[in-house]
Amino acid sequence: MIAYEDDFVWGLEPTLERKMAESYEKIMCEKEQGVSGYFTLGEETLPLMEEARSYAASNTFIQQCDTIVIIGIGGSSLGTKAIDSMLKHRSGKIKRMLFLENPDEIDLSEKLASITKEKTLFIVVSKSGSTIETISIFKEILAYFSLDYAGADKEQIIAITDEDSVLDKFAKHYSIEVYHIPKNVGGRFSVLSAVGIVPLTLAGYNTEGILKGASAMSKRFFSGKEKHLLKKAALLTAHSKEAPINVLFSYANCLEDFTKWYVQLWGESLGKIDSDGKHTGLTPIGHIGSVDQHSFLQLIMQGPRDKTVTFIKLESFQKEMKIPDISLKFIEKTDYINGYSFNELIDGECEATKESIRKQGINVDMIVLDAITEKNIGELIMYYELLTSLCGIMMKINTYDQPGVEIGKQILQKRFK
Amino acid sequence: MIAYEDDFVWGLEPTLERKMAESYEKIMCEKEQGVSGYFTLGEETLPLMEEARSYAASNTFIQQCDTIVIIGIGGSSLGTKAIDSMLKHRSGKIKRMLFLENPDEIDLSEKLASITKEKTLFIVVSKSGSTIETISIFKEILAYFSLDYAGADKEQIIAITDEDSVLDKFAKHYSIEVYHIPKNVGGRFSVLSAVGIVPLTLAGYNTEGILKGASAMSKRFFSGKEKHLLKKAALLTAHSKEAPINVLFSYANCLEDFTKWYVQLWGESLGKIDSDGKHTGLTPIGHIGSVDQHSFLQLIMQGPRDKTVTFIKLESFQKEMKIPDISLKFIEKTDYINGYSFNELIDGECEATKESIRKQGINVDMIVLDAITEKNIGELIMYYELLTSLCGIMMKINTYDQPGVEIGKQILQKRFK
Repeated sequence: MIAYEDDFVWGLEPTLERKMAESYEKIMCEKEQGVSGYFTLGEETLPLMEEARSYAASNTFIQQCDTIVIIGIGGSSLGTKAIDSMLKHRSGKIKRMLFLENPDEIDLSEKLASITKEKTLFIVVSKSGSTIETISIFKEILAYFSLDYAGADKEQIIAITDEDSVLDKFAKHYSIEVYHIPKNVGGRFSVLSAVGIVPLTLAGYNTEGILKGASAMSKRFFSGKEKHLLKKAALLTAHSKEAPINVLFSYANCLEDFTKWYVQLWGESLGKIDSDGKHTGLTPIGHIGSVDQHSFLQLIMQGPRDKTVTFIKLESFQKEMKIPDISLKFIEKTDYINGYSFNELIDGECEATKESIRKQGINVDMIVLDAITEKNIGELIMYYELLTSLCGIMMKINTYDQPGVEIGKQILQKRFK
Repeated sequence: MIAYEDDFVWGLEPTLERKMAESYEKIMCEKEQGVSGYFTLGEETLPLMEEARSYAASNTFIQQCDTIVIIGIGGSSLGTKAIDSMLKHRSGKIKRMLFLENPDEIDLSEKLASITKEKTLFIVVSKSGSTIETISIFKEILAYFSLDYAGADKEQIIAITDEDSVLDKFAKHYSIEVYHIPKNVGGRFSVLSAVGIVPLTLAGYNTEGILKGASAMSKRFFSGKEKHLLKKAALLTAHSKEAPINVLFSYANCLEDFTKWYVQLWGESLGKIDSDGKHTGLTPIGHIGSVDQHSFLQLIMQGPRDKTVTFIKLESFQKEMKIPDISLKFIEKTDYINGYSFNELIDGECEATKESIRKQGINVDMIVLDAITEKNIGELIMYYELLTSLCGIMMKINTYDQPGVEIGKQILQKRFK
């Protein structure tokens, strides 16, 4: 279960209420017209999940391998990594997942050295099929492990890409297992498609729970519930000039990769030239509490009033570690916390930080997960995707494209050609 | 060697030139009056480094231990972690460093399970001596490993704190080894004091090189060189309303923890109520290339023009991994990069991204390290500390305090008392 609590200073003017109603109509259209296909992935990816599950059950190589290497970058890795990071501490017999994202020689060589060829499944993920970092790293994998992709080792490779992409053609030509991403699902909205669900299913995660959590959230929203999403989008976008930055402050280390996923989703979707030709956008920043209270909090408290802050906290960590009842000579003033659990401490930090920020007149809201469960993760992902779409509609931008990154790709190619 | 290249759109008005001259006088005063003590840590920490080195050489426990656990948060861990992350891939016989920062039960229990008591040195770091997260985790360590701090196991514990703090008194009372942080060196400026240098020296790093690099940078700056620092500070602060966000885009995975150190330094120092009572500040954001080109770049390119972007790149990764000359059927269009090194690819990505951003009229600058060396790391740290001080002077704020975080601490205590 997830609770959404807001404590905005801003009020809902009647014009905003109208905007909310209009935007709700528009997002219904986006769903019905398939402007993006992510809305229904919770249901539509289920058969593919079953397929991946059967494939894993019938394939002796996958049964005996202990590592899954994801070769992908951006939307092809961030969401999968986020879910793996959230779930791995509480799941039983799960394969290790390793992410080869950056063409960084130090990072690559360290990770390559930790891989045993015979025990590893390599999944190359690229929507376009020709992402330069991903294909270059894939070539390195082929060379480093002498992987015979055309013959003996093809079972160790899986491709996830758009239908008819060059990677799809490559995979089909060599009878390599391939899964497709719906054309109308962009990279940063694709974690609940084959992109995330196939690798996570093969790793042994209960992806069905994730999909069902996402599906339930989407259905509730499209049947007129979860109105808080409309309110939050309306307030954040109406005040986007005054507070262009949203800080996501997550109070659990295992959420760090989730905040990176959020940064991509938010930044790449909402940083656009709008229909009036103006540069617009909301800037996402991810932080982890309580660590970053010792880093970024001062700026929020006393710096420019250009930020909203969203907290995520867990009600239960499923461990129960109590702070030992030890009194250290001269340091007795810390004893007030003795006997409480570490969870109570971090929870208290989150609440105290929220209260102190709110007291400054800064707009805050909070997402409370009763625990890290598959269902909650699915819901949280759908929550953020819907919120992003709503903000995009209200900002009059195309939420789903990314024209600004093309120039850099062209300049890069010219340097090498 | 480090090269600093700027490509600012903004010009240096005569008023700014005067401001630079005035601020240079002021930072000289800060140094002479000891407003902060970090300026001379490059020289002043040398004797302490020698002391730690001798201690390690004469202590059989330290010689045989293979792990150093740092119990600390914020300024007590970020800098040390940044240096460890940058250097560990290229240093020889180094002890593993493990950082216990967040009172997060999942993270804590995983890390505790990876520690062998007999092989581990525990260093507790807290400037005040009573940081609640740090002391709580220290108590957990004492209980979990049945560490006899008053007797048999005291050699396995070291404290780093201010002289006469409660932790100092505790350590002295039980004859536990303790090192002091100069009173006028705040947490986020303390990595070159005992805070970073003692643990890193004990781990086996060449900390002398780091200190010498920092010292040389500081001396050059205070003898009228490295004027680019004044220029950058003048431009960033003069345009702080127009571009309140500085994005640090580092093109190497091993720099990720360095960007976190920068975020604390920049955010906590520069987010302040200024001498006119106004909320002011520059917001730091850290990103890693090329990964975050697939995440945050779109927002920089087409979003609000509220950002400056600083790139850090390495000229050499000290590996030489070439992209294999493999042509994959149907994916031949990626072959243009074959035969180049991964370093050339990531370097090309950095240059192409910088060029595409600059073409939008966005202010950019670049820091080029010829390699990851101790000397360069020391210089880079001093560069950022000096830059932060200069920005603070020009913004008319107190760079070295953090009054905004006290309220939250009080609210936290009330929740438990």
